[in-house]
Amino acid sequence: MTASRVDLNADLGESYGRWTLGDDDALLGLVTSANVACGFHAGDPLTLRRTCEAAVRAGVTIGAQVGYPDLAGFGRRFLDMAPDDLTAAVLYQLGALDGLARVAGSRVRYLKPHGALYNATVDHEGQARAVVDAVLAYDPALPVLGLPGSALLRLAAAAGLRPVPEYFLDRAYTDDGRLVDRRLPGAVLHDPDEAAERAVAVAQEGRLESLCTHGDSPAAVAMAATVRAALTSAGVQLAAFVAPDGG
Amino acid sequence: MTASRVDLNADLGESYGRWTLGDDDALLGLVTSANVACGFHAGDPLTLRRTCEAAVRAGVTIGAQVGYPDLAGFGRRFLDMAPDDLTAAVLYQLGALDGLARVAGSRVRYLKPHGALYNATVDHEGQARAVVDAVLAYDPALPVLGLPGSALLRLAAAAGLRPVPEYFLDRAYTDDGRLVDRRLPGAVLHDPDEAAERAVAVAQEGRLESLCTHGDSPAAVAMAATVRAALTSAGVQLAAFVAPDGG
Amino acid sequence: MTASRVDLNADLGESYGRWTLGDDDALLGLVTSANVACGFHAGDPLTLRRTCEAAVRAGVTIGAQVGYPDLAGFGRRFLDMAPDDLTAAVLYQLGALDGLARVAGSRVRYLKPHGALYNATVDHEGQARAVVDAVLAYDPALPVLGLPGSALLRLAAAAGLRPVPEYFLDRAYTDDGRLVDRRLPGAVLHDPDEAAERAVAVAQEGRLESLCTHGDSPAAVAMAATVRAALTSAGVQLAAFVAPDGG
Amino acid sequence: MTASRVDLNADLGESYGRWTLGDDDALLGLVTSANVACGFHAGDPLTLRRTCEAAVRAGVTIGAQVGYPDLAGFGRRFLDMAPDDLTAAVLYQLGALDGLARVAGSRVRYLKPHGALYNATVDHEGQARAVVDAVLAYDPALPVLGLPGSALLRLAAAAGLRPVPEYFLDRAYTDDGRLVDRRLPGAVLHDPDEAAERAVAVAQEGRLESLCTHGDSPAAVAMAATVRAALTSAGVQLAAFVAPDGG
Repeated sequence: MTASRVDLNADLGESYGRWTLGDDDALLGLVTSANVACGFHAGDPLTLRRTCEAAVRAGVTIGAQVGYPDLAGFGRRFLDMAPDDLTAAVLYQLGALDGLARVAGSRVRYLKPHGALYNATVDHEGQARAVVDAVLAYDPALPVLGLPGSALLRLAAAAGLRPVPEYFLDRAYTDDGRLVDRRLPGAVLHDPDEAAERAVAVAQEGRLESLCTHGDSPAAVAMAATVRAALTSAGVQLAAFVAPDGG
Repeated sequence: MTASRVDLNADLGESYGRWTLGDDDALLGLVTSANVACGFHAGDPLTLRRTCEAAVRAGVTIGAQVGYPDLAGFGRRFLDMAPDDLTAAVLYQLGALDGLARVAGSRVRYLKPHGALYNATVDHEGQARAVVDAVLAYDPALPVLGLPGSALLRLAAAAGLRPVPEYFLDRAYTDDGRLVDRRLPGAVLHDPDEAAERAVAVAQEGRLESLCTHGDSPAAVAMAATVRAALTSAGVQLAAFVAPDGG
Repeated sequence: MTASRVDLNADLGESYGRWTLGDDDALLGLVTSANVACGFHAGDPLTLRRTCEAAVRAGVTIGAQVGYPDLAGFGRRFLDMAPDDLTAAVLYQLGALDGLARVAGSRVRYLKPHGALYNATVDHEGQARAVVDAVLAYDPALPVLGLPGSALLRLAAAAGLRPVPEYFLDRAYTDDGRLVDRRLPGAVLHDPDEAAERAVAVAQEGRLESLCTHGDSPAAVAMAATVRAALTSAGVQLAAFVAPDGG
Repeated sequence: MTASRVDLNADLGESYGRWTLGDDDALLGLVTSANVACGFHAGDPLTLRRTCEAAVRAGVTIGAQVGYPDLAGFGRRFLDMAPDDLTAAVLYQLGALDGLARVAGSRVRYLKPHGALYNATVDHEGQARAVVDAVLAYDPALPVLGLPGSALLRLAAAAGLRPVPEYFLDRAYTDDGRLVDRRLPGAVLHDPDEAAERAVAVAQEGRLESLCTHGDSPAAVAMAATVRAALTSAGVQLAAFVAPDGG
C-alpha cells in the first residue's frame, strides 16, 4: 500500500494596516501552501511582503489569493465586474504579489480566488473564464486551486492549465458539492476533531490534491494543528502540490 | 559636431474607471518614454493594461510611475509613510505594473516617482532611501528618473543604480533647481513654443538625459507635438534612455 | 385645459479629485432637481460642497444620489451588500450630503439610487427594502425617485414614503418597462431632438412627475437645453417635485 | 471642598468590515464620552451605526472623531490636504456621523480630530483653521476637544467655539506639552495604575475638562476600569463635558 499525500492550504496575509487578522506565523508552521491575499480584499503591501518572507522562511509555497476590490466587504460580496476588468484586476494582483514573493526569494506558484470570487467562479462562466484568461496570459504554468466540478477548474483544464481540486475541512457542502452560503447556520464547522476526521478520510480517498483550513477564525491554529497531527498519525504525507521553488 | 540625443517622457495611464484623463494614444505617438501610473494615485487595472499594450504598439518604453496611495488627491499630497511601508508600497506597484507590461510583451524599464512623492524625494532622505531600497530589491538594473540634485538621484547613484536626470519643460524652477509648488501662480507653463525653446536648449546643452512634458493638461498633446517638431528641426535625436526591449 | 408641469433631474457632483466629469454649472441652469453624488460612487467632499452651493445659487432642489461603495466601477456594478450594511451605507451617504447641503443653505430633499443600485432596487426586494429602511429612519418626509413599477417605489409607498416615478429621456426601455442594460447597443440615446420629443410626450401625458437627463455624457448640456426649450414651447411648466426649501 | 468632576473619553467605532478593533461594548460601560470614528480612518457605516446605538443605550455622549482619508494608515500619517479640501472632508464626516447618531436617537455633540490630524492641528495653523472652519459652518455650538495650548483650541476659542482641553492618560508628553511621537519608545504607557494616578492628579487639579484613554490597545478596558475606579474612590465625579442630550 502506497502512502497518501496531500497539501494543506490556508489563507494568509489578511491583515490591513492597524487591523490584524489571523496568526500567520503559527499557521506557517502547520500548512504547506499559503493563499496570500493580494491587497484587493485584504493585505496592505508591508503585510504582504512580510507574509511572503515568512512563507519562504517556513518553506511554505506561496499562492496568490486574488479577490474583488472590496476592502469593506473583505471580498465576500459578489461584484459584477466586466470580464476584461476582472482579468486585468487578477493580472494586477498576480503581478503585485509575485513581485513581493520574488523579492522574498520565491515566486507566486499558484492562484486561488478568494471569497465571493471563489463562489462566483463555481458557476458563473464569464467570471471563471476571466480568471482563467488572466492566468493564461500571466503564466500558463501556474496551477489553479478551486472547487471540484467548478466552472473555474473545468475551464482551466480546457485551457491547458493545471486544475487542483480542494476540499474545505471546515465548511458544509450542499448535495451537489457546492459550499453552503456562509451566511447560513451550520455553514462553518468549528470542531477541530471533525475537521481532522474529514481530512484523513479525504486524504486516504486520494481523489483531491489539497485540503483547505481557514486562517481567520479564532480557532484556526488549533484546527490546523489537530488536522496536521491526525494526518501524520494516519500516515498521510503533507506536501504542497507545487514545491516552494516551483519544482 | 555630434548629434544631440534626448528622451521625451510624459505621464500616462492616469484615467480611473469612468474618469478619463489625458489623450494617451496621441501622446504615445510623440514621446519616447511613458511614465505609467500604477494604481495608487491613478490608473485602474484595465486602463494600465491597455496603456501598456498601446505603449508596446507605439514602441515607447514603459516606466513605473509610483505614487502615494491617494486617489482623491491624485498623489499630489505629501503622505508621511513610514520607510518600510513606502518601500513595500513601491514594490507592490512595481510588480503590478511589471506584470501588466510583461503580459503586453514588454517590461517596466525604469521608475519615476509621481507628484508629492517626487517632490518629497528631492529633499526628504528617508522617503528617497525607501524608494531606492525598493528598486534595489526589485531589480538593480532599473534606472531611476528624477530631479538633478535630488536626494533620490544621489542615493540611487550611491547604491549603484543608474540615475537619470530630467528637465520639466512646462514647470517653473526655483533658484536652487527645485520645482515651484504647483499651487503657486506661474508654476505651470502653458506656452508650447516656450516649452519647445527650453527643450532645444536643454537637449543641445547635453547635460540631462530626459525631458518631461505633462500628460494631463488640456494642451498636453499640442505641447508635446511642438516640442518634438522643434527638437527634430534642431537636429536632436529623440530616443528613450532605455530601449523598450531593455537594451 | 390646464398646463402640464414636470420636473427635470440630472446627476451632478460626479467629479472626483483631479478627475472632472460633466458640466455641472451649465446643467444647473437647465434642470430643476440635482441628483448629487454622495462620495461612494463619485464625488469628493469639496466637489460635493461646491455642487450644493451652486445648486442653492441656481435655485435647484438637492437630492441624494446614493450608490454602492465602488469608485473604480462608478457604482455601475452590482455589489451584493447585506441589507443592514446597505441601509447603514445609505444613511451614511444621506447624512454626509445633508450636512454639506445644510452648510450651503439648503437640505437634501429627496433620494435617488444611482447606477447598479438603481437597477438592483427595481426587482431585488431585499436591496429595495434596505434603501427604504434608510429613508424611513432618516426622514420619512423624503420622497424617493425611481422607476415606475419598481420594487423600490412600491415598498416606499407601502412604508408611507412618497414615491416619485421618473422617465429616462435618453435610455431605451424593455417591453416590461425596465431600462435596457447600458452594456447593450442602443441602450443610451444621443439625439437631443428625440429626447425632447419624448419629454414633451411624457409631460403632456401627465402620469410621471419627473424626467431624467444624464449629466455625464458629452452632449448632456445640449440635450438638457433642447429638452427644456421643447418643454417650454409646448407650454409645459418646469418645476421640481419638491421645492428647494422643502415646500 | 467641592467635588472634582471630569470627563473620560475614548476612541470607539474603529472596526472596519471583517476587521474588529477594541471592545466597544465594555468601554461604553466605563467612559462618559465616545470619540466615534467617521469612516475616513476607520469605521464602516454599519459599525458606526451600531456604535452610535450602543452609546445611546449606555448614556454616553457621542463625538465625531474626524480624520484623514487613509484607511491603510489608520489616519496616523500626516496628509498634506489643502485647507478647503480638509474643511469639506471634516464637514462630510460630521454630517455622516451626525446622521447615524440622529437615527440612533442622539446627535454628534463635539468634535475631536484623530491621529495625525490631531497632531497636525497642534502646530499647523492652516490645518487647525480648516477644522475650525468646518465646525463653525456645521454647528458653532459644537465644542472642540484637543490638546491644551494647541493651535486648534486657540483658533476655536478665537472663533467663538468652546475649546475643551484634554489630558492623555496613556501617552508621554514632551517638555512643551506635546505628545511624544508614538513611533518613539516610551510614547505609550501601558500601566493601568500609572494611568489611574495621573487621572486622579489631573482631575483634582481641576484645570482640564477631559481625560483620554485609548480604545484600541489590548489592555484598554482594564486601564479604563482601573482609572474609573480610582477616580470614583478619590471622590471625583465622572460626567461628560456635554450631556448626551446636548444639555
